[in-house]
Amino acid sequence: MASTDARDKKTIGKLSKLAREVVRDINAEKDPSLSIPSRSLGNVTFDEARSIIELGDQKQQRQLFNVAHARKFMQTFLIADACRELIDEGKTTSIRDLYYITKHTLEGSRQNTFEDQDESDPIIEDLEVTIDALREELHLFATNKGSMVGPMTIVDSGDAIDLRRLGSGGWSIPSIVESNVIQFQECDAEYILLVEKDAVWRRLNEDKFWRANKCLLLTGQGMAPRGVRRLLYRMHKELKLPVYVLVDNDPWGFYIYSVIKQGSINLAYESLRMAVPKARFIGMSSMDREAFQLPDNVTIKLNDQDISRAKQMLAYPWFDKKAWQKELKTMLRSGVKLELEAFSNKGISYISEEYLPKKIRDRKWLA
Amino acid sequence: MASTDARDKKTIGKLSKLAREVVRDINAEKDPSLSIPSRSLGNVTFDEARSIIELGDQKQQRQLFNVAHARKFMQTFLIADACRELIDEGKTTSIRDLYYITKHTLEGSRQNTFEDQDESDPIIEDLEVTIDALREELHLFATNKGSMVGPMTIVDSGDAIDLRRLGSGGWSIPSIVESNVIQFQECDAEYILLVEKDAVWRRLNEDKFWRANKCLLLTGQGMAPRGVRRLLYRMHKELKLPVYVLVDNDPWGFYIYSVIKQGSINLAYESLRMAVPKARFIGMSSMDREAFQLPDNVTIKLNDQDISRAKQMLAYPWFDKKAWQKELKTMLRSGVKLELEAFSNKGISYISEEYLPKKIRDRKWLA
Repeated sequence: MASTDARDKKTIGKLSKLAREVVRDINAEKDPSLSIPSRSLGNVTFDEARSIIELGDQKQQRQLFNVAHARKFMQTFLIADACRELIDEGKTTSIRDLYYITKHTLEGSRQNTFEDQDESDPIIEDLEVTIDALREELHLFATNKGSMVGPMTIVDSGDAIDLRRLGSGGWSIPSIVESNVIQFQECDAEYILLVEKDAVWRRLNEDKFWRANKCLLLTGQGMAPRGVRRLLYRMHKELKLPVYVLVDNDPWGFYIYSVIKQGSINLAYESLRMAVPKARFIGMSSMDREAFQLPDNVTIKLNDQDISRAKQMLAYPWFDKKAWQKELKTMLRSGVKLELEAFSNKGISYISEEYLPKKIRDRKWLA
Repeated sequence: MASTDARDKKTIGKLSKLAREVVRDINAEKDPSLSIPSRSLGNVTFDEARSIIELGDQKQQRQLFNVAHARKFMQTFLIADACRELIDEGKTTSIRDLYYITKHTLEGSRQNTFEDQDESDPIIEDLEVTIDALREELHLFATNKGSMVGPMTIVDSGDAIDLRRLGSGGWSIPSIVESNVIQFQECDAEYILLVEKDAVWRRLNEDKFWRANKCLLLTGQGMAPRGVRRLLYRMHKELKLPVYVLVDNDPWGFYIYSVIKQGSINLAYESLRMAVPKARFIGMSSMDREAFQLPDNVTIKLNDQDISRAKQMLAYPWFDKKAWQKELKTMLRSGVKLELEAFSNKGISYISEEYLPKKIRDRKWLA
């Protein structure tokens, strides 16, 4: 990564402001304190107008001269200081690594700055919400997961990568995809297709579905990781492309779609920078079984967990739409779920040659 | 993938031979039967001379006119037939997909060819050992996992990919890496480095370790999947490059190394085409803690499972070497394990700038 650019300068500005405020408190002979947005469930709401899951306005105070707060207060600044150093050096690292970087035994004691990573991870999240910066802007990354191909060139850390010429493996999506690292060039795509399953992504890639259908083809290999979500968001906004999501016909698949669309409770504080409220559910729908005449023997019986998950979903405000209620009720009434691979029963390339083109042509998606 | 090439022709020949033998049995009025190498633990041995875990000579008979065998007999030919079709069409698929492709309800009955994937997966393994073909040669793939960068160009399904210019994400290693799909070009590397952890791989990639040290840098993201192991084997053999393995200092890390080196019990029948007996363990060694003066607070106490795993390993024939016995005993005596990230306590790029170059320069590896 190149050294400090505009975005990095902004993040450093936010980190410095945090420190300056504490210094100001001390100079004013006030107890130094931090005001941290609460990440508890009680502070998470669904914003109907924007159609995303968001963090509310509740804040908690963290004070230096409070025995219950002092340790966390110091830890927050240890993490902030380490992130500032990472940004200064133009380096990135994992949250595991950050734990090791900031772990020290306090001089003249047996006290460690952090006992284990369970202590440092929440402090990182506190810092993210407090200064309103993405983890990736603090130069921290999560595991690499997900692949992409399609009619576009990506510039990744200065290397131009033509996503049309990446063979069977595709481009491995990094977890940091901010605009200082990743830029988009020469895009001929007309839409974005996110596929839950790696195996289905590979089928579509082998069939060169993305070439015939002019789309950017991504997989998050299950629940999409932060990097894939953020990239999807950026491409949707900057390239003005619609997003289609293709998942299994089961409650987990619906949940994966809903996280793409309005965010999750755990990462409510990131929804504004990751959620794509206009994402379209292209399948697999409970109605597809009849529409595409799939045989009974490829269906799978819903288990108890599926049934209770589907019932919960009926009550979620973001599924409180006529089409989604019908979708969920049809699944519950049928008592079965279906995997995307079930289409292979009708021919190995049925999904790329028949199913997807027909669904998109007939505009059979849910929004 | 291109249509049938020499390797595909060979696999089709093996599949046809299997069918011809059954037809010959029938014409000779003999009970048709298949002779399948046994994959049970009792038939797995460690070949000291070749230093790999191998399948022995025990075979089991599967007969058509035996009530206990008939179902599996038919299933074997259903799978064989579907693989033959895949190869003919020049397509590849997942084992999940193959289950759906071959699942049918037998006419005039409620009997399914396969009830679930637990029934079809072992049949695939039977077929692999029976006709002596890799799963990948049957055009079946596993999950995409693992990345690579380095001074080499890869040709993947006809696309030339310069592994020097792939930014932060790297090339996503596919699970089928046979020579008809993947070819090597313009290699300037002097060795191969396989890193257990994705986060450490990213550190080394960000530091452009592979450029300064002329190596191909791979990660298998934990236990290396089949594609990564097979690619490693091919690069080691065809490019004549030594392989170094970098794992955590714990029994799981040692196990990951040992699978790369001599194969595993589960995949004993693949060792000959995947194991790299000359693979070198470059770290993290139990001796590194002292050699690189890591502080006590970055060590992690061995848990009961670690201790029993390490004790088991002391008795494994492939760890029955002086240096490995010392390695394992040092770990057990110290009572602690270490993660690769612990080096970050000495500086974020310590592992790329100090640790690895010194270990390789001083030839401090175990073979």
